[in-house]
Amino acid sequence: MTERQNKPLVAGVELGGTKCICILARGPDEIEDRVQLPTTRPEETLSAIEAVLDRWSGFSALGIASFGPVSIDPHAGDYGHITSTPKPGWANQDVAARLRRKAGVPTGFHTDVVGAALAEARWGAAKGLPDIAYATVGTGIGVGLIAGGKPVDGLTHSEFGHIRPVRVAGDDWVGSCPYHGACLEGLAAGPAIQARTGIPGPDLPADHPAWNLVAHALGQLLHALVLTGVPRRIVMGGGVMVGTDHLFPRVRAAMTKSLAGYVALPEVANADTFVVPPALGGNAGPLGAIVLGAQALGEQLQSSFMGA
Amino acid sequence: MTERQNKPLVAGVELGGTKCICILARGPDEIEDRVQLPTTRPEETLSAIEAVLDRWSGFSALGIASFGPVSIDPHAGDYGHITSTPKPGWANQDVAARLRRKAGVPTGFHTDVVGAALAEARWGAAKGLPDIAYATVGTGIGVGLIAGGKPVDGLTHSEFGHIRPVRVAGDDWVGSCPYHGACLEGLAAGPAIQARTGIPGPDLPADHPAWNLVAHALGQLLHALVLTGVPRRIVMGGGVMVGTDHLFPRVRAAMTKSLAGYVALPEVANADTFVVPPALGGNAGPLGAIVLGAQALGEQLQSSFMGA
Repeated sequence: MTERQNKPLVAGVELGGTKCICILARGPDEIEDRVQLPTTRPEETLSAIEAVLDRWSGFSALGIASFGPVSIDPHAGDYGHITSTPKPGWANQDVAARLRRKAGVPTGFHTDVVGAALAEARWGAAKGLPDIAYATVGTGIGVGLIAGGKPVDGLTHSEFGHIRPVRVAGDDWVGSCPYHGACLEGLAAGPAIQARTGIPGPDLPADHPAWNLVAHALGQLLHALVLTGVPRRIVMGGGVMVGTDHLFPRVRAAMTKSLAGYVALPEVANADTFVVPPALGGNAGPLGAIVLGAQALGEQLQSSFMGA
Repeated sequence: MTERQNKPLVAGVELGGTKCICILARGPDEIEDRVQLPTTRPEETLSAIEAVLDRWSGFSALGIASFGPVSIDPHAGDYGHITSTPKPGWANQDVAARLRRKAGVPTGFHTDVVGAALAEARWGAAKGLPDIAYATVGTGIGVGLIAGGKPVDGLTHSEFGHIRPVRVAGDDWVGSCPYHGACLEGLAAGPAIQARTGIPGPDLPADHPAWNLVAHALGQLLHALVLTGVPRRIVMGGGVMVGTDHLFPRVRAAMTKSLAGYVALPEVANADTFVVPPALGGNAGPLGAIVLGAQALGEQLQSSFMGA
């Protein structure tokens, strides 16, 4: 393969809950155009994205990294739809098929979290590693798991932020998740921190005792991610992690204590390089869409080649 | 592809802690030979396997499903080795490279649990499903996760039996895992049941209150497996599950209660068909080795075709 084939020009759409970023790019250093749109009603937003795609030419794939939950099961009738969301008008909204028809090119579709994971694995904090996990800890807790360069999924996408961790002895706070109470998201996401302490995470002093409970819960997330067997590195981002510098050493220590030497591999033992902040910042989402598009193109090329 | 190419003749080796089963087969209904050997010292056992391979001819791949932990990371220097084990002589023992040299054919290598998962997905209780989980609950708790027909792994293989679940309120038993105390294996494997109650699992009466605690822990395993996003079905086997008929309804109920409607997909909602016993019995391991061999052959054919 030539360098050119390895780096196709791709149209990428990060569809977020409040804004939508469209980029035309081959990678982080080759962004030919970037357009930001507000996410409003579906008809308005999708028409605006279509107008951007109409204006662009020469791209050979389209990638979409969407807020969720979404249907990523190609066997399902609602593949490529946003499924359930409180956002007005967006529940059961078809996104992928509509934009693919407009673009007329192979189209990849996944969650924004998996998009960010793919981008960090390709160009960011886990550059060159085929097997990684990306966890975003913000308004919610989302996890993207990548194995062999591809998202790990099947029936649906990961919702690992909702596993129920063992509690710190003596802590019986009910948690803030409307489904599960004290699942990981209900213990350690931004709204959980605010519900427990009355103070938003970014304003909570580093010596507040609630941070130990948050770090313990996130240590359990890391423990479980390590025991999937997949990640060679775990990237942690999101509003609770980014800028809260004291939290990284605490979650690393909580993970190491919890694993108790069980996975005796140097990658994991060296917690400072195993659990790291993201490197791509706000570009992770749209660049993830570029990876999703490039993978859809690669799959189409491979299947036509194999079928020839 | 012809039917013949889809079903190559494969030599399969299930290397267990006490016995080793070698089969020459295309599938469960086409087993041409089956040889059982005791697992003793490595030199004796591996030489006996080599003698079996020498006697067989016409197979185009070799698959090995081994007791673990094993190194399945092709980037690692110890790939294909059993890594750490209390079994005398077997720690750091090369298995895959030695048998591959003898067989001279493409060779697949993984854990016995992943082997059983692949076999159940191909021919057993999850027949035809590309994305499944297999959990064995016996002397330990092992998990095999299969996505797109292939094992989910990366740095190492899954050790999901050692995640730490939330506890039942009021239960503060320390658990029996030498690493983690009250991880899943330390709460719900056979030795944990015996340590807590003084009675081996198979003999514990169905109305013993400890079963509720075991079912809760296993419900947390299912909760976490569902939230990986992968399985379309979960097969549960092993000495604690098989024959303990009252346990399946309990673990299904514990899973459903814990998920609390969060993954609202019909596959999961119908717990009776989502969580099922295995179908292949003692043949799951050696048949898993056949799948591993066939996959190694497929990968070699694909890479030579793509490189042509």
